[in-house]
Amino acid sequence: MAKALEGVKVLDLTHAYNGPFCTTLLADNGADVIKIESPKGDQCRFWGPIDPKSGESGFYAFLNRNKKGITLNLKTEEGKKIFLEMVKDADVVVENYRPGVMKRLGIDYEVLKEINSRIIYASGSGFGQYGPIANRPCYDIVAQSMGGMVNLTGFPDSIPTKVGPSIADNVTGIYLCVGVLMALYNREKTGLGQSVDVAMLDTIFSLLENAIVINTMTGEIPHRQGNIDPSIAPFDVYKVKDGYVAVGVGNDKLWSKFCNVIGRTDLIQCEKFLTNDLRCKNYDPELKEIISDWIKDKTKKQLENMFDEAGIPCGPVLDMKEAIEHPQIQAREMMVHMEHPIIGEMYFQGVPIKFSRTPGSVDTPAPLLGQHNEEIFGQLSISKEEVASMKENGVI
Amino acid sequence: MAKALEGVKVLDLTHAYNGPFCTTLLADNGADVIKIESPKGDQCRFWGPIDPKSGESGFYAFLNRNKKGITLNLKTEEGKKIFLEMVKDADVVVENYRPGVMKRLGIDYEVLKEINSRIIYASGSGFGQYGPIANRPCYDIVAQSMGGMVNLTGFPDSIPTKVGPSIADNVTGIYLCVGVLMALYNREKTGLGQSVDVAMLDTIFSLLENAIVINTMTGEIPHRQGNIDPSIAPFDVYKVKDGYVAVGVGNDKLWSKFCNVIGRTDLIQCEKFLTNDLRCKNYDPELKEIISDWIKDKTKKQLENMFDEAGIPCGPVLDMKEAIEHPQIQAREMMVHMEHPIIGEMYFQGVPIKFSRTPGSVDTPAPLLGQHNEEIFGQLSISKEEVASMKENGVI
Repeated sequence: MAKALEGVKVLDLTHAYNGPFCTTLLADNGADVIKIESPKGDQCRFWGPIDPKSGESGFYAFLNRNKKGITLNLKTEEGKKIFLEMVKDADVVVENYRPGVMKRLGIDYEVLKEINSRIIYASGSGFGQYGPIANRPCYDIVAQSMGGMVNLTGFPDSIPTKVGPSIADNVTGIYLCVGVLMALYNREKTGLGQSVDVAMLDTIFSLLENAIVINTMTGEIPHRQGNIDPSIAPFDVYKVKDGYVAVGVGNDKLWSKFCNVIGRTDLIQCEKFLTNDLRCKNYDPELKEIISDWIKDKTKKQLENMFDEAGIPCGPVLDMKEAIEHPQIQAREMMVHMEHPIIGEMYFQGVPIKFSRTPGSVDTPAPLLGQHNEEIFGQLSISKEEVASMKENGVI
Repeated sequence: MAKALEGVKVLDLTHAYNGPFCTTLLADNGADVIKIESPKGDQCRFWGPIDPKSGESGFYAFLNRNKKGITLNLKTEEGKKIFLEMVKDADVVVENYRPGVMKRLGIDYEVLKEINSRIIYASGSGFGQYGPIANRPCYDIVAQSMGGMVNLTGFPDSIPTKVGPSIADNVTGIYLCVGVLMALYNREKTGLGQSVDVAMLDTIFSLLENAIVINTMTGEIPHRQGNIDPSIAPFDVYKVKDGYVAVGVGNDKLWSKFCNVIGRTDLIQCEKFLTNDLRCKNYDPELKEIISDWIKDKTKKQLENMFDEAGIPCGPVLDMKEAIEHPQIQAREMMVHMEHPIIGEMYFQGVPIKFSRTPGSVDTPAPLLGQHNEEIFGQLSISKEEVASMKENGVI
């Protein structure tokens, strides 16, 4: 079956995490993504988990599936010339170097648009392409901290807490993909390309939901709240017999069902808990203790069944193994199998956007370093002998 | 200046958070988004912060800027008939009801594609449109918990911790936008629409980066690690004189610069810290204590300057007020001003994707309930008198 982006040619100059996350979304959905690495290779070829037998990186392998890989030293004149040649019939260039690097290499948007006015040029970075600190180096933890996310995660009495996985990186990659796609659609109407700029700092800031308007409308500075939602109660993560379970009771109807489930119908008419507003006010410690006491000797499975039957949103805190094996994750093919030429059998995350007519899928493993050099350079009428000599001269 | 999605007509049946986050991205970039609410209004019209003078919701106001708003009771035959009429020349329908609701209303994709084969029909939900638990109710905290995020956030000795803001909701909205845009691009090539299905559970699962391959390749079950990255050291959030600061030292070159900044060049040749691998092994407690001791009486500003000068990624943990006022956030117009007809002056988050030729922007405030009824129904040749009678009969 054809995929959504069939025929779209992407030159992928990205490395590490935010840029590659963007081009993975494009590649999973049918774009021809040619990953262009320096002859040393993307730094994440050295990131764990590392296959003990071969030294190959599992990180690189899951993040670069469906892409072809070539090497090119853009600091050499010959390497740059080949890249500019490739730009002529490309649709999209994606890069996530530090702002300024592409200009120093002589392959920034201003240069590329002269060669191909239809090119879409997408840049992911820590702080963006302009602004007073645009040129600073950035890691995910720095963007999470400065963007306000770290201060809002964790408990009132804990230190500020970063989100475990690198969401500044991967959500920046998703926004970058949104940018590429909007520009592609617009090009269909206008015939013109453009550049797209997404910053990890802006990304984090955009995800803070009502924390920003709380500050600007009330002057209050929102503080981290642990696992509760200050405007809904009960809504928390509880310790149970074999782990932790999240439960949320968003309105009076659910509250009455909840009281039924916990065998405390007397609470439905209790004045302290009559409305959501009162339940919020009297949650800690009173209501919290009632629930914690009742819930502590139940199992995750028992609770899930009881609350599910009553239509109350509830779910266990799953560890990585439990989440991977969950029937819903499996049914939605969020885990896929891939045979990697060196690592062998692999299982990693699938495609999160489900289309009815053009489903995305994982079809080919991540490229070995320079695996598609002969194929891609061959399309530019560079002979095998020339490829060999380019390798010798450090061009690829 | 024209925006990227000018001319794209979106019928927005979304409420609360993930669906509206998707249509905001579309509306900020020029799509004509018509938000269709039940006569009672989107539930988030009652979510805080609430303007004390008027009772209007700041949450609704920031999340629904740039959209037009009408009311329509889809449970009435007349309401449904009007909606189906609107579908004829629409490009996109976005909805985030519980799976099954649209079918019960008789306006699911199977029905709509018969009226308009070009329609793109995007659905956001907790668990997706299929799978064994597709029909369960879900909140952000439940998706975060079951998807594996909560177990990976927080400290080894703390309880599992949810991400403060509702990232299962808003990232699902961004993926839904990716889906709409891929389908729009594909429709340009094929003339055909399709349906798009994104689940909060899948979204969270897709953001876990290497936690999944760590489990499948090594059998190990990754556990939450607080603010460190287990494969880089030093990389942590430190308590300083006036708050907290994040610092990351990703390689040997940065390590040597770091030792210079903290006045401990003796550490560069110290055998315990010679490589990143050794620094990871000897970070806690030894290296951590050295850094914590040195850093504790410096201020955020001092540290930012010192590390910035040395090219070391570093940034303070900012609270909401500090992040809003940060010069980089301001320079990138991540805070915008809007005059709301009832709330008055408002300041909220801007547009995170920066285009060179078709910049998005915030131009109009969120609609009051039913504000554009006469305008939009007028386009369907429904007279003002008929609109008034529809209101009386509970159709709008």
